[in-house]
Amino acid sequence: MPASRAGRCPKPRATVNAEIIAVGSELLTPQRVDTNSLYLTGELNTLGIEVVYKCVIGDDRTRLAETVRAAVERSGVVILTGGLGPTEDDVTRDAVAEALGRGLTFRQEILDGIHDLFTRMGRRMAANNLRQAYAIDGAEVLDNPRGTAPGLWLRTDHPSAVMLLPGPPKELMPMFRNHCLPRLQQLVPPLVISSRWFRCAGIGESDLDQLIAPVYTRYTNPVTTILAKPGDVEIHLRARCETLEEGERLCDEVAGPILELLGERVYSRNGDPLETAVGKLLLDAGANVAVAESCTGGHLGERITSVAGSSAWFAGGFLTYSEAMKTALLGVEPAVIATHGVVSEAVASAMAAGARDRTGATYALATTGIAGPSGGTEAVPTGTVVIGLASAEGVEARRFRFLGDRERIRGLAAQTALNLLRLRLSCPS
Amino acid sequence: MPASRAGRCPKPRATVNAEIIAVGSELLTPQRVDTNSLYLTGELNTLGIEVVYKCVIGDDRTRLAETVRAAVERSGVVILTGGLGPTEDDVTRDAVAEALGRGLTFRQEILDGIHDLFTRMGRRMAANNLRQAYAIDGAEVLDNPRGTAPGLWLRTDHPSAVMLLPGPPKELMPMFRNHCLPRLQQLVPPLVISSRWFRCAGIGESDLDQLIAPVYTRYTNPVTTILAKPGDVEIHLRARCETLEEGERLCDEVAGPILELLGERVYSRNGDPLETAVGKLLLDAGANVAVAESCTGGHLGERITSVAGSSAWFAGGFLTYSEAMKTALLGVEPAVIATHGVVSEAVASAMAAGARDRTGATYALATTGIAGPSGGTEAVPTGTVVIGLASAEGVEARRFRFLGDRERIRGLAAQTALNLLRLRLSCPS
Repeated sequence: MPASRAGRCPKPRATVNAEIIAVGSELLTPQRVDTNSLYLTGELNTLGIEVVYKCVIGDDRTRLAETVRAAVERSGVVILTGGLGPTEDDVTRDAVAEALGRGLTFRQEILDGIHDLFTRMGRRMAANNLRQAYAIDGAEVLDNPRGTAPGLWLRTDHPSAVMLLPGPPKELMPMFRNHCLPRLQQLVPPLVISSRWFRCAGIGESDLDQLIAPVYTRYTNPVTTILAKPGDVEIHLRARCETLEEGERLCDEVAGPILELLGERVYSRNGDPLETAVGKLLLDAGANVAVAESCTGGHLGERITSVAGSSAWFAGGFLTYSEAMKTALLGVEPAVIATHGVVSEAVASAMAAGARDRTGATYALATTGIAGPSGGTEAVPTGTVVIGLASAEGVEARRFRFLGDRERIRGLAAQTALNLLRLRLSCPS
Repeated sequence: MPASRAGRCPKPRATVNAEIIAVGSELLTPQRVDTNSLYLTGELNTLGIEVVYKCVIGDDRTRLAETVRAAVERSGVVILTGGLGPTEDDVTRDAVAEALGRGLTFRQEILDGIHDLFTRMGRRMAANNLRQAYAIDGAEVLDNPRGTAPGLWLRTDHPSAVMLLPGPPKELMPMFRNHCLPRLQQLVPPLVISSRWFRCAGIGESDLDQLIAPVYTRYTNPVTTILAKPGDVEIHLRARCETLEEGERLCDEVAGPILELLGERVYSRNGDPLETAVGKLLLDAGANVAVAESCTGGHLGERITSVAGSSAWFAGGFLTYSEAMKTALLGVEPAVIATHGVVSEAVASAMAAGARDRTGATYALATTGIAGPSGGTEAVPTGTVVIGLASAEGVEARRFRFLGDRERIRGLAAQTALNLLRLRLSCPS
C-alpha cells in the first residue's frame, strides 16, 4: 500500500469537512467493502468539501447514536448510508433521532410513496414497511423512486447538514445527485480544483521526499501527496481556489521547482505508467524493442505489451530461464557463462545482443538474476539482477541488488529495465 | 470484487470485540479502499473475534487520539494500520501515546534493525527514519523484515490489546500472522477452526454456485464462502467447533459432495494458484513446458516462473507478437498465416509445435488472439484467443471468446492455457 505525505491538511478557506458513516453488519465481514463512500467522496471533493473521517458500523443503535453525536460536533456535513430498511435491524433513523434529541413522526406522504412503488411492482406492501414512513422531526424527505427507503435531509444547530441515504448504490447515487448536491452547493462557497500528477522512477520514496519536501511543505494549497510502489513514486498536487487561473498558477508555482529538482527521474506528467511512457518514446523515435528474460520470466514482455498498440514498438522476445536456452535461443557462449557466471554483466550483454540480432530490433533489454527465495550465494545473493541493454551503439550492462520477496524482486527488475531504456531514449548519450 | 455466499453468520459463542482504525489521508480519496481491514477481519473471525467498528482517518493527530481513546474504552482489541512511516505526517505512534497517556522512548534495537535493512539494500539511512526508532512506553516491538516501520503491541488497563501495524499489506500480513495472532490466541477462549480451501478453473461463479448451493446452504457451520476472479473460483469452508474432530467431520461432510459435483474442475485443495498446481504436475511427470506467446505477451511465462523452483519445469519461451517473428523465431510458414489468418487453430498449432521443437520441451503452449481494445473484426472479434498445445502425441488447438478489457482478456487467455495443460497432465487421454 503506498504511503502518503501531504504538506499539511489544506484549509484553503474556512472549508467544510465531511464525515461518512456506513451502517450495516454485512459491511463488517471480510468480503465486503463500502464503495458508497468512494462515490460520495468524489462528489464532495468537487465542491471543495474534504472527507476527514469515515467509518463502518454494525446494526447497533447505541454505538451509532454515539458516533453521530461526535460527528455533528466535529464536521459540517455528516452523511449516513444504509440502515433505512423496514426491519428491526435498520437502526439509522432511530439512532440519528436519539443523537440529535428529536422525535420521529409519521408522514402520510412517505407511506403514499411506498404504496405507490409496491403497486407499480404489482406487489402488496408488507406491514413492516410502515416503519419507513416515520421521519425525524424537522427533516426534509428525499424522494427515492428506486426503493422503499426515502432519504432524509436535516440541519442541526451546530450547524451541520445531516443526510440519511439508502445503502444500495443505485438508490443512493441519484438521490445524492438530485437532492443533496444542490442543497450542499448552497452551504459552501464555490471552488475550482487544479491538479498535477507526476510519476518518477529511479528514486526511492524517502530520498524523493527529502529532495522535494523543502518545496511543497511551504504550501498548504495545493496539497501534495506522495504515493510509492516498488520502483515507482507518484506525486499529486491539488489546489482548490476560487478561479481556475489562481489554481493553475499555484500548481505551476509548486510543480516548477519540483520538476527541476527531480529532472530526468520524472517519466510521466499525466499519470501514464512507465510502459506507456517508454512506448511513446519508442514510437516517437521510430524504434522498437526486444526482450531476453531470465529472472523476470515474461514479466517485462507482459508489461510492454499491456499497452494497447504495443505491436508498433515491441519486436518480440525470448524467455531463457536455463543456461542451455540462453545458448540455444540467444547464442550466449557456454564459455562466457562458465567464466563469468550466469548472473553477470557478460551474460546480460550477450543475451541483449543475441535478442537484438535475432529480432532486428533497435533496442534489446535482457534480465538475468536471482529472484529467490533460494539460489543466492555469497558472491551473488538473492535479489542480484543484471540488466543488459543493446542498441546500435553497442551493449551495456548494469548490476542491481533488490530486496524483498520473489514477486517484488521480479517487479523491480522489470521496472528498472524499462527505466534504463527510457533514460536512453530521452537522454541520448 | 468477489461476492460471498454464507449460510448465516455463525455466532458459536460471544467473545471479544475488535475495532480497526486505518490511518492515512490517501485512504480518504475517491480512489482508495482500505483492504487491510478485510484481511484482518477474516483473521480475527477465525478466532471468534467480531469486528464491530472500523474507520478511516486522515493524518490528523488530535482526531486520531480521540478515536483511539473511544475505541479502547469500547473494545477488547484495537488495531491501527498505517501512519508509522518516517515523516511528519506519520502520526499514529504519537496519537496512540497521547490517547493512552504514555511517553515515547528511543529504542536502540529498532534503529539497529532499520540500519540493517538499509545496509542490505546498499543505501544510506535518511535522517527522518530516526523517528521510527521511538516506541510507546510499555509496548512490545514487532519485527518488520520487509520495511522500516516496526509494529507495536501493547496492553492497556481497560484491558484492551492495541496493535500498531504498518500500512503496506506485504508488511502487515506477515507481522499480524507471526506476531499478533499468537498473542491474540492467549486472550480469547479457544475455539478450534477447521477449514477447507478449494480452487477451480473452467467454470464460472454463477454456474458453480448453482451446482453446489444445494449442498452448502443446508449448513450454517461450516460457513461457505465463494470468491471469484476471472477464470478462477475459490471455495472456502470454515467450521468453528469446540473440538478438532467435530470441525473436521463437519468440513468433510460438506466438502465430499462439493468435490464430487465439481470433479476435474477443482485444481487445488490447499489454495495453491493454478501455476503452482501445473508446476507440481509437471514435476511429478518429469516433464517441462515451453511457451510461445502472442496476445499474452509474456504473461503466461511470467505466471509459470512466478513459482519458486520453476526452472525445474519451465523450458523457455518466445514472445512473437508480429507475424514476422512467428515465422523467424518459431518457423510458422507465412503461407499458413496468409491462408488461415494469424488468429487461427493452424497458427496456434504451428507456434506450439515450433516452440516445442526449438526448446526440446515435453509440452508447449501457444497463444494467439485479439486482446483489444482495437484489432477485432467481424470474423475474429476482440476477445478471440486460440490456444495451442503441443506434446509427443501431436498438436491440438482450441478457440475461445473472452469478454472484458485488454487486461482481463490477457489474464483469461493465460489462465485457460494453464488449465488446458493441467487437464492434459491430470487426465491423460
